[in-house]
Amino acid sequence: MKELEERILKDGFVIGGDILRVDSFINGQIDTGLLRRICAELAKGWGPIDKVLTVETSGIAYALGVAMALGDLPVLFAKKSKSKIVDPSNLYTAEVKSFTRGIVSTIAVDRNYLKKGEKVLIVDDFLAEGNASLGLIHLCEQAGASVQGVAVVIEKSFQGGRAKLESMGYRVVSGANISGFQNGQVLFAD
Amino acid sequence: MKELEERILKDGFVIGGDILRVDSFINGQIDTGLLRRICAELAKGWGPIDKVLTVETSGIAYALGVAMALGDLPVLFAKKSKSKIVDPSNLYTAEVKSFTRGIVSTIAVDRNYLKKGEKVLIVDDFLAEGNASLGLIHLCEQAGASVQGVAVVIEKSFQGGRAKLESMGYRVVSGANISGFQNGQVLFAD
Repeated sequence: MKELEERILKDGFVIGGDILRVDSFINGQIDTGLLRRICAELAKGWGPIDKVLTVETSGIAYALGVAMALGDLPVLFAKKSKSKIVDPSNLYTAEVKSFTRGIVSTIAVDRNYLKKGEKVLIVDDFLAEGNASLGLIHLCEQAGASVQGVAVVIEKSFQGGRAKLESMGYRVVSGANISGFQNGQVLFAD
Repeated sequence: MKELEERILKDGFVIGGDILRVDSFINGQIDTGLLRRICAELAKGWGPIDKVLTVETSGIAYALGVAMALGDLPVLFAKKSKSKIVDPSNLYTAEVKSFTRGIVSTIAVDRNYLKKGEKVLIVDDFLAEGNASLGLIHLCEQAGASVQGVAVVIEKSFQGGRAKLESMGYRVVSGANISGFQNGQVLFAD
């Protein structure tokens, strides 16, 4: 998506060699108009979808945007920590290693909200190594829900997430596909 | 908002005497159509607004919905934990006690995204004792931004949040105003 690539070049910046910071418009402060246009793109080309699934925190806004673009589908977000108002015996859980934070956390969804046979689209802000998506797929497997694919705002395809997901048979779409960083500059695939 | 009150009576339930669980449609799984209608209501009656501010996690979807209803305004969400990709010297921070979790956490926003003179609308899913809103107001005070008011999906007015905020001069609007719980039943104001 040309608009997103241009915005990344204008307002994103690379730190530490492999982390792209886009929190002025994607995942700290959100440019709501841009979000609408990204989500309209990400929503294209899917068959029937019952539910959009993401993991807190920064994926939530994009999951909602895609769910709206697909006709106001329900959004489910996996949580990273346990609150006292959730019964832990009634959860599907998976372990996820965060690329940017470098820590392993447990993600969980209530078993009542993910059902056998449901067609699920996974949405997130970033796809790097694919760990968050694999965790969400694992939650769906436990429920018997059927993952239709993965839609992300920005992928860093050189970190292997897309290859891993495609080798498992999942369709992957992204708003911008970064093939690498060179001297602090962002390079896009194609 | 009658639709929301009816939905709370139908699908919400009270646990532990003072916690309302609505995660089947508000803040675990989101009913996207309902979110649209709630946010259209919450967006009414404000003067000029520059930015919508919330705190992760469950407020994000509603902040985005209200920002869309107000003409695709930017959304800023305060974060509860520090990621290695954010420079801690460049943050406004405030302490917030969570009503449901019973813990104190530090919330933070990047100083670049909250500016002197900006007209800010605070949006959240719940208003109980008002601690999250007070923390967000404190962030705005540090920036010199001007809080125009607080819009929440569900308030539990008997827990004092509204009274506290109104006594400070802020307009407060909610989708549903709960005046109390009686034998596990939800009572609405009016």
